[in-house]
Amino acid sequence: MASSDEPTEVPTDYEIAQQVETRPITEVVEPVGLTEDDLELYGDETAKLTFDAIERLRNSEREDGDVILVTGMTPTPMGEGKTVTTVGLTQAFNHLGENALAAVREPSLGPVFGVKGGAAGGGYSQVLPMEDINLHFTGDLHALTSAHNLVATMLDNHIKQGNDLDIDVNRVQWPRAIDMNDRALRETVIGLGGEATGIPREDGFILTAASEMMAVLCLADDLADLEERVGRIIVAYDEDGDAVTADDIEATGAVTILLKDALKPNVVQTIEGTPAFVHGGPFANIAHGTNSLIADEAARKLSDYLITEAGFGSDLGAEKFMNVVCRLGGMEPAAVTLVASVRALKYHGKDMWPADLDALDEADVEAVRAGFENLDAHVRNLQGFGVPVVVAVNRFPGDTSEEVEAVLDHCREDLGIEAAESTVFEEGGAGGADLAEKLMTAIETNEETFEFLYDVTAPIETKIEAIATEIYGADSVSIGSDARDDIERMDELGFGDLPVVMSKTFHSLSDDASKKGAPTGWDLEIQEVYPSAGAGFLVALTSDVLTLPGLPDDPAAANMDIDDDGTVSGLF
Amino acid sequence: MASSDEPTEVPTDYEIAQQVETRPITEVVEPVGLTEDDLELYGDETAKLTFDAIERLRNSEREDGDVILVTGMTPTPMGEGKTVTTVGLTQAFNHLGENALAAVREPSLGPVFGVKGGAAGGGYSQVLPMEDINLHFTGDLHALTSAHNLVATMLDNHIKQGNDLDIDVNRVQWPRAIDMNDRALRETVIGLGGEATGIPREDGFILTAASEMMAVLCLADDLADLEERVGRIIVAYDEDGDAVTADDIEATGAVTILLKDALKPNVVQTIEGTPAFVHGGPFANIAHGTNSLIADEAARKLSDYLITEAGFGSDLGAEKFMNVVCRLGGMEPAAVTLVASVRALKYHGKDMWPADLDALDEADVEAVRAGFENLDAHVRNLQGFGVPVVVAVNRFPGDTSEEVEAVLDHCREDLGIEAAESTVFEEGGAGGADLAEKLMTAIETNEETFEFLYDVTAPIETKIEAIATEIYGADSVSIGSDARDDIERMDELGFGDLPVVMSKTFHSLSDDASKKGAPTGWDLEIQEVYPSAGAGFLVALTSDVLTLPGLPDDPAAANMDIDDDGTVSGLF
Repeated sequence: MASSDEPTEVPTDYEIAQQVETRPITEVVEPVGLTEDDLELYGDETAKLTFDAIERLRNSEREDGDVILVTGMTPTPMGEGKTVTTVGLTQAFNHLGENALAAVREPSLGPVFGVKGGAAGGGYSQVLPMEDINLHFTGDLHALTSAHNLVATMLDNHIKQGNDLDIDVNRVQWPRAIDMNDRALRETVIGLGGEATGIPREDGFILTAASEMMAVLCLADDLADLEERVGRIIVAYDEDGDAVTADDIEATGAVTILLKDALKPNVVQTIEGTPAFVHGGPFANIAHGTNSLIADEAARKLSDYLITEAGFGSDLGAEKFMNVVCRLGGMEPAAVTLVASVRALKYHGKDMWPADLDALDEADVEAVRAGFENLDAHVRNLQGFGVPVVVAVNRFPGDTSEEVEAVLDHCREDLGIEAAESTVFEEGGAGGADLAEKLMTAIETNEETFEFLYDVTAPIETKIEAIATEIYGADSVSIGSDARDDIERMDELGFGDLPVVMSKTFHSLSDDASKKGAPTGWDLEIQEVYPSAGAGFLVALTSDVLTLPGLPDDPAAANMDIDDDGTVSGLF
Repeated sequence: MASSDEPTEVPTDYEIAQQVETRPITEVVEPVGLTEDDLELYGDETAKLTFDAIERLRNSEREDGDVILVTGMTPTPMGEGKTVTTVGLTQAFNHLGENALAAVREPSLGPVFGVKGGAAGGGYSQVLPMEDINLHFTGDLHALTSAHNLVATMLDNHIKQGNDLDIDVNRVQWPRAIDMNDRALRETVIGLGGEATGIPREDGFILTAASEMMAVLCLADDLADLEERVGRIIVAYDEDGDAVTADDIEATGAVTILLKDALKPNVVQTIEGTPAFVHGGPFANIAHGTNSLIADEAARKLSDYLITEAGFGSDLGAEKFMNVVCRLGGMEPAAVTLVASVRALKYHGKDMWPADLDALDEADVEAVRAGFENLDAHVRNLQGFGVPVVVAVNRFPGDTSEEVEAVLDHCREDLGIEAAESTVFEEGGAGGADLAEKLMTAIETNEETFEFLYDVTAPIETKIEAIATEIYGADSVSIGSDARDDIERMDELGFGDLPVVMSKTFHSLSDDASKKGAPTGWDLEIQEVYPSAGAGFLVALTSDVLTLPGLPDDPAAANMDIDDDGTVSGLF
């Protein structure tokens, strides 16, 4: 099926999911040693892991499973199948008799109703119940939206009720959040209507996944740590320029209460009946972009291989996974799978901007080859961390064998690394067996040692330069005068030793979305540096990064429907 | 305990709830004839009734239980205990060996973090798990917020993507919604930031409970009816003045998908272990203000007495329950409990505005007597519907026996109706036995016939006048010229035969919040009339009604905390 050049008709993700006979989640978790008592059930097929279970696993003597990170080359706007590969690869390991667990991010309603559709994998590599996972699921995103907006509400209420903290209304750092691609809320003026409603000021909304609250949830160890992180969040500066925190406006307790269940990892099943964690998921362009550490940690105590994904490419999610998440969580990846696609290679090879997805359907092996420089740069980025890299060519129905072979040959012959075709979308775990085997071999034979890109105690500028030149391929870094002031203040506030999260477009390795391939000879400009004091990192802003996307002309939502008996269509 | 004049120390609602040994919801529902198969579990203690179960009950031959409506006199800002009485009365019926079910509204996070605290009853008359019910519960409010905002997002996206429907940006009828008392969002300007973000326009947020989406959910029969109602919602007018619906902007399917689980009634347990429905809950000042019809309908097939509540007083929730909900749902109330409190009577007797709650703690039987005119007006309002009325004096710890007796005597001697002291807050069901017995007698001996206040086919002005003069006690009604145009247009659009929902302050029987007692000699001004075409009623706006409250100076949220082990404090 996968080796034929003929496009194959695959039913929709939803149709595939509907055909699967799922088992109760209490049964699904048995093989990894969890019992019903370890779970809080949300229906038959979904559960949250209790804090007691998390604590027990944390104290267990069992060796942690190996961490395999799935990341990608610079993607087309449709994505290249990182979640599909993550779920499929996990199925593949289990298919081979190994004990592997996936830990992936929770979908946001924004993209679900916008362009991308579901984010629970696809084809025969999905996590189920995909319909719930893609909609309200266990309510974690809603809890985060509420928690985020409670802080904003209490902040504006504090200002309106006398502003005892002398908050500078022009230096409020905490926007509002919504889990919807509602671009009209990007820039707003609030507090209109006269004295009764407070002080008019500029404000804006960000997508919930872009909130520091999400990053905080994904990095917190337990409730006490969550509460501490929430309290540290800087929400504004006062008239003297001092930081005003969530704790100062007395929001810490109530916010933590709103998040107490959201902190518990969600457990579901893959389409092949093995357990999987789906928990958290911040933006990889303004936060760290991986699922929760609490889920990773639990999953590693329950498996020999934890397969997890990082948002966007090696320049964004993967770099942050290595330098921020592994550092904060005390983890080391054992191997990385770099997801490439013929489509994305043609996108780079044709130097296409904006993306014309239809044009990418035509077989064009020369365009594929012309796109290798993007793939190569991502491979080099990952190899720099001292971690073995195996390229997964995620095969799409229209790809020709000649195109796929060209990529595999390039990896093996030109880059000297292993590569495997992945057909997990069409074939499930069986379609990822080759990839799984190559990863196991890579882990076994690896002689390198994982290392961070930068010393976290180095000056902030040095950390930024390391990422810019060694990962993005920039020649130089220009730090604007505002950003220079920011850095000075960060040092004064005692944040100088935090890791740096770069906020950059995901459409290019560079800071210019229109540049494909592996741009060279350019200068990275830093506009602003601010602390995510709750999460525990600094954010360095490059050019404008969209924190609240919009819907397209024909949004996915417009094509959705539901029967009288509850069967949905158009959702995926 | 209740007959002593000494105030009694009652533990907090949360402490009481924590002491209760709850049973699995699957066991709790057994006595009313439901099985595990009828439920979708959300943890051990909460479930949703499946559509199959609802359909089976709908087709059952079993006689419907009697409907007992709980409403109140004009309340102080703290509320007079309608939910406490509703839950306690249900417990009382069961305590007496009768089969009764409560159906109450879902709390909104706005008040939970603001002034009122929890809304799951209180003391020994609560629905459990009260902590979940007061926070995210089964996610219904969050689903409604998302559904509401998806419509707003698609509307602004339509305008931005070329505005094929010629929507008049100055006549958008659909605000945004948030489940948070965030007054700064009451009046906003959105779409700022230049061409990329769309067209700047005035907008505002309302509380989710104030959204027509909530009214639609609470009145829908099933998924098909929900979808139809959603599609009919008028979201804007076009350049020709024609209505633009949710269907026109292609939001119907996706919105219904977001609400498909929220439509299923939630089943929990009372503190005394009997099942209770908690589902829906729109504002009674701009919508109909009662829990969902779908829950009422199911509960009546499972019980001999359905105890349900209507928001605010007889002028708001109860009037709408009679004229709108009973009409649309084909129900007739068998009796009404009017909740009075010594505190509220003193509030009226002292003609107090704004409320000084501390001043109401002092014993003052003369002030109580001076407040009777408010109570009397509510009794007359309810008697006008041909329904027996029993007054429940909800006893608060500081009330003196002399005060309570004065109210009971007044009802019996001056009004000639039954009245009972209710101590369900302190004593649970046992404290409502007298009330329950009087209600049963009232139902048995009732010789009157229920009738609507107005003929729904009467002219819109006539319907408004009937409510204004016969319920509110106004002398006359002035309909402004804008409102007169609105009425003309409503007739043209074919909405002339819909029932009318009056939007009026709940702080007074009149349209002036400062006027206590039973104001006479005043004129009700109608500012605007608009259709809630999805819900199926017209809304007539009187003076300004707040659809997005704000937080007080010392919000409840500021006093909340959570231990490392997850025990919350300050929440209730």
